[in-house]
Amino acid sequence: MRNTRSSTPVWKAIAAALRADISEGRYLPGDKLPTEVQLSARFGVNRHTVRHALSHLVDEGLVRTRRGAGAFVASTPTDYPIGERVRFHENLLAAGRRPEKRVLDVECRAATAGEARALEIDEGAAVCAYRGLSLADGAPIALFESVFPVDRTPGIDRHLTETSSVTEALALAGVADYTRASTRLTAVLSDVTQALHLHLREGDPLLRSTSVNVEAEGHPVEYGRTWFAGDRVTLTLEA
Amino acid sequence: MRNTRSSTPVWKAIAAALRADISEGRYLPGDKLPTEVQLSARFGVNRHTVRHALSHLVDEGLVRTRRGAGAFVASTPTDYPIGERVRFHENLLAAGRRPEKRVLDVECRAATAGEARALEIDEGAAVCAYRGLSLADGAPIALFESVFPVDRTPGIDRHLTETSSVTEALALAGVADYTRASTRLTAVLSDVTQALHLHLREGDPLLRSTSVNVEAEGHPVEYGRTWFAGDRVTLTLEA
Repeated sequence: MRNTRSSTPVWKAIAAALRADISEGRYLPGDKLPTEVQLSARFGVNRHTVRHALSHLVDEGLVRTRRGAGAFVASTPTDYPIGERVRFHENLLAAGRRPEKRVLDVECRAATAGEARALEIDEGAAVCAYRGLSLADGAPIALFESVFPVDRTPGIDRHLTETSSVTEALALAGVADYTRASTRLTAVLSDVTQALHLHLREGDPLLRSTSVNVEAEGHPVEYGRTWFAGDRVTLTLEA
Repeated sequence: MRNTRSSTPVWKAIAAALRADISEGRYLPGDKLPTEVQLSARFGVNRHTVRHALSHLVDEGLVRTRRGAGAFVASTPTDYPIGERVRFHENLLAAGRRPEKRVLDVECRAATAGEARALEIDEGAAVCAYRGLSLADGAPIALFESVFPVDRTPGIDRHLTETSSVTEALALAGVADYTRASTRLTAVLSDVTQALHLHLREGDPLLRSTSVNVEAEGHPVEYGRTWFAGDRVTLTLEA
């Protein structure tokens, strides 16, 4: 990229090219950009010029760098309201994002002691566990495991593999409405598996939510644990 | 510590001694225990035996080890309800903890753009910022910065240095009651300063809360940012 005919500095042209790559979705939020060496080769400039362009994109909030790891496409965190009715699909549409869920696995088995306590069922009673990924505009924002008591949600495993939506699967299982009874939140570091699923680095911060949803009579129908990517989601609580 | 007269294995006696040290408050939650070498010398045993005792305390949940950093006193996270009225003192007493606040500094200055927006005042209007540490049973659980609009909370800086309690200082400034209007939560990694204040390691996970409290008429009286130590606090939301 020579700069003989215009007065635009070369670094600005490089920044504009990378900005276009990002806005056109060639690189998604969380993606690693090519290295400085690769970008130098692509644009035919020295690394100093590439670094200048990148630091400009960092100032704009479009890119962030991690010491020793390179430059990544930054993301504006998705606002995710935690209220009486927490609905992934509606929450994301309200935030102007395209919602998507990806099923990792659905497994029916005996409830552990913790699951039984949360769901108010007997230890060892049948539950189905749904593990999956939540995505916003194609970028993973959360990893989750939802556990359903089979007695109160008959056929839930089949419905989940059909729809991937918890709300729809619960409706098909006879639970027309459900509300959030409790949410517990803390911050943890991602392990290597979580990092792989969420396109993060091991040790990146996760907001962990543990929640119970109940049906109209107040009986638990879902015990969920969700690990939100800290830099991609902001949980919001309004009075 | 010889073991010639009893049938209690030496490692169990060492575990018991460390357990007593912790329960008597000689080591507080988050504190680093002496190294394996130091413990070997103290108890007159080899490192293998010390390691056996420590791994037992880890299994009990009393101690946790961090690769390359040693063994630390674990803590049962404090439940911290986020409801209509969020009161540090009451929250901690309800969780069976001894609440304490430590003032780092109180500084009055012009509001930044972000503070002005949150507090619904003009950019550059006078605010007082209160930075401090929240402790539970003597162990730091959160670092916070609360910003107050001087017009709505006259004399707040003086009251804060007198009481350290936000609720009391606001009452003295004429705000008899206040409620939580909004809370925004995410997970971040601690920087070196936060880690020092919270007795953590740089890069440990923090739950960051950004909140606005309003007085009876709905006008903001406090814009707060709090960084909770992820392994010491669980925020709870009940329906």
